Amino acid sequence: MSKTPITSLGEFGLIDHLTRNITHYHKETLKGVGDDTAVAAFSKEDQVLLTKDLLVEGVHFNTMYTPLKHLGYKSIAVNLSDIYAMNGTPTQVIIGVAISSRYTVEAMEELYAGMKLACEKYKVDMVGGDTTTSVSGLTISVTAMGKVSQNNITYRSGANTDDLICVSGNLGGAYAGLLVLEREKEVYKANPGVQPDLSKYNYVLERQLKPEPRKDITEIFSRLQITPTAMIDVSDGLASEILHICKSSKKGAAIYEEKIPVDMQTAGVGHEFEIDPTTLALNGGEDYELLFTISQKDYEKIKDLEDISIIGHITNNPQQADLITTSENVVPLKAQGWDAFKKEEE
Amino acid sequence: MSKTPITSLGEFGLIDHLTRNITHYHKETLKGVGDDTAVAAFSKEDQVLLTKDLLVEGVHFNTMYTPLKHLGYKSIAVNLSDIYAMNGTPTQVIIGVAISSRYTVEAMEELYAGMKLACEKYKVDMVGGDTTTSVSGLTISVTAMGKVSQNNITYRSGANTDDLICVSGNLGGAYAGLLVLEREKEVYKANPGVQPDLSKYNYVLERQLKPEPRKDITEIFSRLQITPTAMIDVSDGLASEILHICKSSKKGAAIYEEKIPVDMQTAGVGHEFEIDPTTLALNGGEDYELLFTISQKDYEKIKDLEDISIIGHITNNPQQADLITTSENVVPLKAQGWDAFKKEEE
Repeated sequence: MSKTPITSLGEFGLIDHLTRNITHYHKETLKGVGDDTAVAAFSKEDQVLLTKDLLVEGVHFNTMYTPLKHLGYKSIAVNLSDIYAMNGTPTQVIIGVAISSRYTVEAMEELYAGMKLACEKYKVDMVGGDTTTSVSGLTISVTAMGKVSQNNITYRSGANTDDLICVSGNLGGAYAGLLVLEREKEVYKANPGVQPDLSKYNYVLERQLKPEPRKDITEIFSRLQITPTAMIDVSDGLASEILHICKSSKKGAAIYEEKIPVDMQTAGVGHEFEIDPTTLALNGGEDYELLFTISQKDYEKIKDLEDISIIGHITNNPQQADLITTSENVVPLKAQGWDAFKKEEE
Repeated sequence: MSKTPITSLGEFGLIDHLTRNITHYHKETLKGVGDDTAVAAFSKEDQVLLTKDLLVEGVHFNTMYTPLKHLGYKSIAVNLSDIYAMNGTPTQVIIGVAISSRYTVEAMEELYAGMKLACEKYKVDMVGGDTTTSVSGLTISVTAMGKVSQNNITYRSGANTDDLICVSGNLGGAYAGLLVLEREKEVYKANPGVQPDLSKYNYVLERQLKPEPRKDITEIFSRLQITPTAMIDVSDGLASEILHICKSSKKGAAIYEEKIPVDMQTAGVGHEFEIDPTTLALNGGEDYELLFTISQKDYEKIKDLEDISIIGHITNNPQQADLITTSENVVPLKAQGWDAFKKEEE
């Protein structure tokens, strides 16, 4: 039997490969693999959304610098983000935790306290849990269920030529926070007694450790009566997500570097680490902002909203996404985003 | 901060402890923690069932003797079993897999081939997947969604005094299979060249490696127009499951040892390992049979069904479940079933 390393395919390649030619038996199944969530239509009014994310110790988090309460909060937040990315409302979460004997009841209480805090903030019902042992480390598996009306559901696949490409908040901050934490970890290993002053990094650290999914953006859509034509959450970096929308919508995109929103603190950390702010935004990941496209007719409704940036437009070139740089060069975007399988090779 | 070991609570104790006082915000959430699945009522006709199980390498399976295709099949089967235990129909599954670099693409293909086979057999739609790396080993997280009409849903909590306690198939076989596999593993370690002849264990090995959830039993209920008053699947052993029904229903139970169905091969393995067949059935676990209670008025409908055994009745003593032994002694049942946290201490 041949032995192909997983890294030769990467996460998306592997999923595509393994789920090719999947048969669906239920007419209620509207969407399987390939969007932020799966979609099932059990009722005439509301469609059911289902999504799941795994967080693995040593791959997605490091307990040396991630407080368990934050980790619990984040494990819920990243799943809710997928539901919001369908323009839906999360309703229930179900939790799976595998823990080694190194973890105590008190540690689990911290983890669950963070999960409950996120459930409370976003009004989501924790409806079940499977807790078991692991041989080593902590693995958290959260599944979120949500609902959305047939008229409001937003897939990745609906972008039309000339639609405006918009993004909420700002990008690159979560990765900037990770850079700082990884550096401090090495400093701490060398000098265990030293307590670093991280106050000047507070914003990027919060972006990394306690991301907030953008429920408020879906509320703005509802209030302004906008339904985006396509939407995805930014978990792997702007470049990767734009390419997902282009691929699903069979369209292209043009993004303007000068329009990409980056916070000053993120830019400052980029400066320290000699990484261009645009690179942080394009490839950083874990920002959990919403990237969406809207029809030009909705321009007036959103143009003055402070927390939404129009960064480009959809083109007719299938799957070709270009970055127009500040110096007016045109650079094809590549998905060099955070990939769990690439990370392993680093 | 005090440091309470997880083992002091066990799996059910830990879940109870962590999910105490959970607030639900959605009126659609009918059932959270504490049954085979969570239940949400998004539509008037069908209620949505949601369940999740984690399978962890070195805790729930050993790849030394578990073919990956079987493991994939089992990871789906155990989740569907929870949906059938609500008298429901599984409709979708969503998969999470964390794998170390030791696994190849071909290994993942085997795992998914088993998953797809189970999905095909039970007509369930695989609607998504999150695949990521792990630092060590393989962790599989499957979430199953299903539906059931309001009239047919069967909780653990509906058993009434004098209801008949029934179980499908036979018990203890899966644990007997595990005993054989664990023994052969040790033999193999000592003499790596020797290929053992396991043909006389074929039935119990299949019970362990490739369990079949009892869809057929729910079909019998439908055909005979029976709705069980309470139901649970046998994943942790008969004793543990009966106590779950008693606790949820606030009733007691009397079980007759001579009525507990045990296959001859299971009894034979018990003989080899000097374990009483009743002990295998009560504490073995992983049989994925259905344990259910029915009203006495339904007795005529099921009394001649070959694959269903009536093993006792519900009593009025809250939470007291007794085994009436073949020698007519009365022994209180204790949940000594397979518990992931106890296992670690062995």
